This record gives sequence, structure tokens and C-alpha cells, in this order.
Amino acid sequence: MARPIVALLTDFGTIDHYAGTMKGAALTICPDATLVDISHDVPPHDILAGALELHASFRYFPPGTVFLVVVDPGVGSTRRGLAAEAGDYRFVAPDNGVLSAVFEEIAPRRVVSLTERRYARPTISRTFEGRDRFAPAAAWLAKGAEVAALGSAVKDYVRIGIPHATQTGDRLVGQVLRVDRFGNLVTNIPRAMVDRLASGGAIDILAGGQPIGTLVETYAGAAPGTPCALFGSSERLEIALNGGDAAAHLGLTAGAVVEVARPATAVVR
Amino acid sequence: MARPIVALLTDFGTIDHYAGTMKGAALTICPDATLVDISHDVPPHDILAGALELHASFRYFPPGTVFLVVVDPGVGSTRRGLAAEAGDYRFVAPDNGVLSAVFEEIAPRRVVSLTERRYARPTISRTFEGRDRFAPAAAWLAKGAEVAALGSAVKDYVRIGIPHATQTGDRLVGQVLRVDRFGNLVTNIPRAMVDRLASGGAIDILAGGQPIGTLVETYAGAAPGTPCALFGSSERLEIALNGGDAAAHLGLTAGAVVEVARPATAVVR
Amino acid sequence: MARPIVALLTDFGTIDHYAGTMKGAALTICPDATLVDISHDVPPHDILAGALELHASFRYFPPGTVFLVVVDPGVGSTRRGLAAEAGDYRFVAPDNGVLSAVFEEIAPRRVVSLTERRYARPTISRTFEGRDRFAPAAAWLAKGAEVAALGSAVKDYVRIGIPHATQTGDRLVGQVLRVDRFGNLVTNIPRAMVDRLASGGAIDILAGGQPIGTLVETYAGAAPGTPCALFGSSERLEIALNGGDAAAHLGLTAGAVVEVARPATAVVR
Repeated sequence: MARPIVALLTDFGTIDHYAGTMKGAALTICPDATLVDISHDVPPHDILAGALELHASFRYFPPGTVFLVVVDPGVGSTRRGLAAEAGDYRFVAPDNGVLSAVFEEIAPRRVVSLTERRYARPTISRTFEGRDRFAPAAAWLAKGAEVAALGSAVKDYVRIGIPHATQTGDRLVGQVLRVDRFGNLVTNIPRAMVDRLASGGAIDILAGGQPIGTLVETYAGAAPGTPCALFGSSERLEIALNGGDAAAHLGLTAGAVVEVARPATAVVR
Repeated sequence: MARPIVALLTDFGTIDHYAGTMKGAALTICPDATLVDISHDVPPHDILAGALELHASFRYFPPGTVFLVVVDPGVGSTRRGLAAEAGDYRFVAPDNGVLSAVFEEIAPRRVVSLTERRYARPTISRTFEGRDRFAPAAAWLAKGAEVAALGSAVKDYVRIGIPHATQTGDRLVGQVLRVDRFGNLVTNIPRAMVDRLASGGAIDILAGGQPIGTLVETYAGAAPGTPCALFGSSERLEIALNGGDAAAHLGLTAGAVVEVARPATAVVR
Repeated sequence: MARPIVALLTDFGTIDHYAGTMKGAALTICPDATLVDISHDVPPHDILAGALELHASFRYFPPGTVFLVVVDPGVGSTRRGLAAEAGDYRFVAPDNGVLSAVFEEIAPRRVVSLTERRYARPTISRTFEGRDRFAPAAAWLAKGAEVAALGSAVKDYVRIGIPHATQTGDRLVGQVLRVDRFGNLVTNIPRAMVDRLASGGAIDILAGGQPIGTLVETYAGAAPGTPCALFGSSERLEIALNGGDAAAHLGLTAGAVVEVARPATAVVR
């Protein structure tokens, strides 16, 4: 029988022992779990960034995976802890909206507040609930506990706004969600929206007001040193530079506005 | 039956292949081990920092865990390698004091020098004993070998001084042990010492000579942008900034003096 | 029966979710795999650096290990994907030469192009073949598939030049291949070549034109603060500084020329 998988996403970094300690706490309860790091380098306290990373990654894990997501500026406060099931997956996280992007796509079947104390460590630190509350809850799920057993159902869990691209007439306006390690600017403009707008015709693209040359199929499809646009691994528009760093080249970062329009349409700046 | 756990703590970083190679060497001996990273980013050659990270983390791992700790400025020299058992855990490390903080808390039942060559790789590099000596020793322990089998008992293993807070009259003096990724200043002043001093009354706190406003229960308990003090996940006094970076705000780093006194007592500066 | 091991080496970094997502894709196919990170911090798109890290590490993994190597500036282009077997190991990588250093040492018994679509995800992103093509292929190998089943044999896979030290008369000329986290300058000059040249006598060493004091056996064998040379964990000449950072001290980085000569021989600069 396959071993249960717990996938971790936090803003703990890897210099401190925090992520490792959380793994120790999880293995104490479920020693057979396979622990997988998605990342521990979500920018500190950046709930939206955590929500987006989780969303980009979760569907590639096996059914049954438990996601342990700890980006938690409100640690120790009265904000609740959550366990949830959605699609083939389960999730444990603070109730601050970090699961919002996943839940927008897959409505959760069940969300509970982590009120059952026996699924936490006996003492719960006010500064490290990842170790004392969230890791144990995820490990109990991995070990076979039902989400419903971990606490009472809640409907009013926190949702945060996930920025979406919008269309006004013949013009799409979106934004850069994140810059990846290669300097690619990952936007929130889905391929389907661009395809619909283009209807097989040409389009113009502006990133931070700067014209982006060509819509290509692969990084290698653009001339070296020239910015280009393509659809990235989540089928969102991405601004890239073949063999270079588009973010540095264009001087742009997360939040920059990206516009797509039909050539006939003057892009208002 | 649960798989054996080997938890790794090193100063190897994650850019070079060293930590991965050490894992390959361990799995060659004990392919069923579950390997867990505590951190590979202990500051290079900083034995005290390694000792403190290990101490903060070890007790949250399952009984039976083998800790493979390689912070080893003396690699290749005549300093010994050690295997030890203390409490429910076993440890493999160079004999340079990196286990001191754990051993202060739990006296080791047995410490041996890694003299039995058959528990090491056939050839031992003078620059990478982690791969050739320490990882194999840890893997053999994970596989069921007894600590006693790995070498001859030693009593004179190296202890390094772990800095402790002291009390003089109505005043506690401690120091910042480390700054974590969030900018929290983790001190060596235990909650019990502060509680005894305060006896339910008020206290004054100075960090690097700067007055720290309030003793709060959680990060969220302080006004945003104002330094505060609280007890962190190891029940030590911590200086923090709700939603900010206390170390940057106060201009302090590891080694900074932290004082706690009753308000009646003038804090001598 | 031991669980199959998949060792990962990429230039994805650990801030983005990419390495984690690739692991999810692998576990979806082979949930029992033990996943081991060699490093995800190969410099972006640096195929030679990836080839050298893999070469330094692979032989320390258990027989049967599958290496999943993704340093892939040509992602999405027509460059092929490869699976290969060499010695006791198997490899999955883009066909760009990143396996060259291993194949120089161990001629591969079989190399195939990843043409069999059923060993990839149904849809293959043009920007993330690691997730959709390489991780699945490695997982299928881990699960028991034969390399031959993954595609058609190729002979003309890409080889890149691995820089080797050369001997002219009584003088060896090599170069710094990489600088490690401790500031050690790892060269491509093998111990055997130096031993042969020295024939038991003295040698002079220059790094970037600067004389390096002594050939020592261990870091601790040199005076603190003085550059020294020794043979590192891959039996190559390494320039180091006892307790310090040789690269910073000497102002050298990867690519710097390192020369070894008999004292009788004037080193031409």
C-alpha cells in the first residue's frame, strides 16, 4: 500500500530549523509519511503569494496528498486553524485565506476549525503553531483520520481576493503575479482569454507599458535578448527573455500591469 | 514497522552537492531510511550555532531518530568522530562540541569514538568526512547497529560553553542567540527565570540598551511597528515586531545583550 | 524490498514551486519512490555546472538510483529528452550534454530519446518539461520500466566539452571548476597527475598567477589565513584557506587558471 504524502508549503525559510522541526512533529505521529517540500521560501507573511504557489502546484500531486500550508502572520492570535477537503486532496492551514486560490477552483466539500485538541500537541506555542497544531493535524490526516474528526464545520472561513485579469472591449488587463527564478514574469492572464480575444489574429502585448515583441511557443522561439510572451506551465501568459532575465531587462516585478489588445485597438496608457 | 529516521543538520548549504551526496552515502547503507533536513544553512563552521539549532529541534522528532550533525571546521584533522545515545535519540557528529547543548539537557548514556573502520566507507576523504565517515555511521545506526559497536567509549568528548542568562539581584542579563528569518531576536532567557523575577508584577526589558515596550502573548498582541517581547517556541524570551523585522528595526544581531529587570530597579547601562 | 531512489538535480531554485511540483508528478506515478535532492541551485541554464555537480555526486548513490537532471535552457524547443543507463545507474535529462561528465567516465550502455508518449503526462507544457516529461520518465524507470521501453535508441546525443587539465613538459595547467560554499576553489587537476609530476619531490602551485603556499593533507594542516592546496573529496586539487574563504582572499572564481610545476621549472606567466 502506498505511503501517505504530506506536501509542505511555508514561509519559514531553510536557514532556521522551523521546517525541519515541523517535519519531526509530523513524523512523530505518522512515521510512514513521505514528506515533500513545495517551497519554504514564500515571502514572509505573504498570504497571496502562498495561495498562488499552492494553486500552481497542488494538482500535480497524487490523489490523497495532504497539503500542510503555513504562511501565518496571525500565529498565536485567535485566528482559527483549518482542515479541509477539496477534490482528491486535503489541506491544513491557518484561516487567513491562503487556501483561497485552490478553493476558487475546487469548492471544498468540507472545512473544519481545528478544535479537537487531541489532534494537536499537548502544549501549543503561541509563536509556532506549525509545529504544535498544523503539522500534527496534517499527520493525523495522513494516518487516516477524517477531516470531520478534527473539529467543527465552518462556513465563514476567510477568502482573500485573487487578482484576475479583466476584459474591457477588445482589451485585456492583467498583472504580473510573480517573478520566477529565471526572471520570467508570470501573469494572471489565461491562454483561453487571449485566444478568444485574438480569434486567430494578431495581438499586441504591453508589460508595464513596454511593448513586448512576439507571442512565441517556447523560450527558444524568440531572438536572444528580446522580450517575448508565451503561455507558461499554468497556461497563463508569461513575459520572458530567451536566455536572459526578463524582469531585470524590463525593470518589472510582481504587480506590474500587463495589457493585451488587438492591433486595431489603440492601447490607452 | 516504521522506517528509521535520519535527521540532518549541516553547514554545507544547498548550492553544492555535498548534502545530497551525503544522503546517497547513507541510503547506500540503509535504503529504507527516511531522511529529514533540519537545515543545511548553519553559518559555515559555526559550531555554537549548530549546537543551538540542534537543541531547538531534536525533541520534536520521533524516539529512535538518528541525528547526523556535520558542522566541522576540523575536517580531516585528528579530531575524533563521535556516535552517542542520549534519551531516546542517537547522534553522529565530529567531536567539537556541536552536541553540547543537547548533552547539557540530557546526559548521554554512551559516547563512542568512531574507530571501527567497517562502519565507514573504505576510503575516507580528508575534506569530506560527512560522506565517508559520518553519514555511513548514522546509516548503520538507522539500520540497527548499536552505538557501542561503532567504536570505543570516550569520556573526554569536547564540550563548548553554551551561553546562559544570569541573574544578579533583581536583574537578568542574557543575549540574543540568533536572529530568525522573520527578524525575531531569539534570546537565551527562559520563561521560568522571567516569571520568577516578575512574581506576577511588571518588568522592564532592554535589548541592546533600547527599551522594549511590552511583554505580550503573541506577535499580534503588540501594536504594529512597535517592538515587543514574548516567549517563543522554545520558551525563551524573544524580541519581535508585529508584522515587521525586529532585528532590522533595532539594528541588533546575535550577541546583543538583553536585560530584564523589575521597574523598581534602575537598569545600569 | 528496498524502495526505488530518484535523485534530483536542477537549476529550478527552491523559491518557486517547480522542484516540488516535479516531485508531485513523480510520486503520482511511483508513490513509493524515495526522492533525494542533490541540489536545485545549479546556476540557471549552466549545463556544464550541472554536468560537474552530477559527476561529483552520482557514484555515492545506491546502485539502481535514477537521476533526474533538469538544467534545460532549450525547454520546449525541438531538443530531445533522454533516458540512459550507465554502470549501475539510470538517467533522465534533456539532450544538451548535461550527462557528458558522467558518460566520459562510464560509457552508457543505452541511450534513448523519450519518444514514447505514454511515459509522459498527457499534455506537455512547452515551458515545464521537467514536470510533464522528465519527472514522469524517471518515475516510470523507478517503478520498473526499462530504459529501452521509453523510446528509440540514439547514438548522436549531445556531448559537451568537459575541461581537463593538460600537461606540457613539467607543467600542469588546469582551471577552477567551481567555488564551493566555503570558498574552496575546486580544480580539474587530478591527484594522480600531480603525484606523477612530483614523483615524490616538491611542486609549486599558482592559482590565477598567485603562488599558493603549501600542499597539505587537510584544511587544518595550513596556517590560518594562508592559502594552501590539498586534494578534495573528488581527488582533485583544491585551493583553500584554513578557517577562511580562499575565493574571496585570492579574488578568484570559476575559470581561473591553476598551474602546477616542479620548482626547477620556471612557471611562465
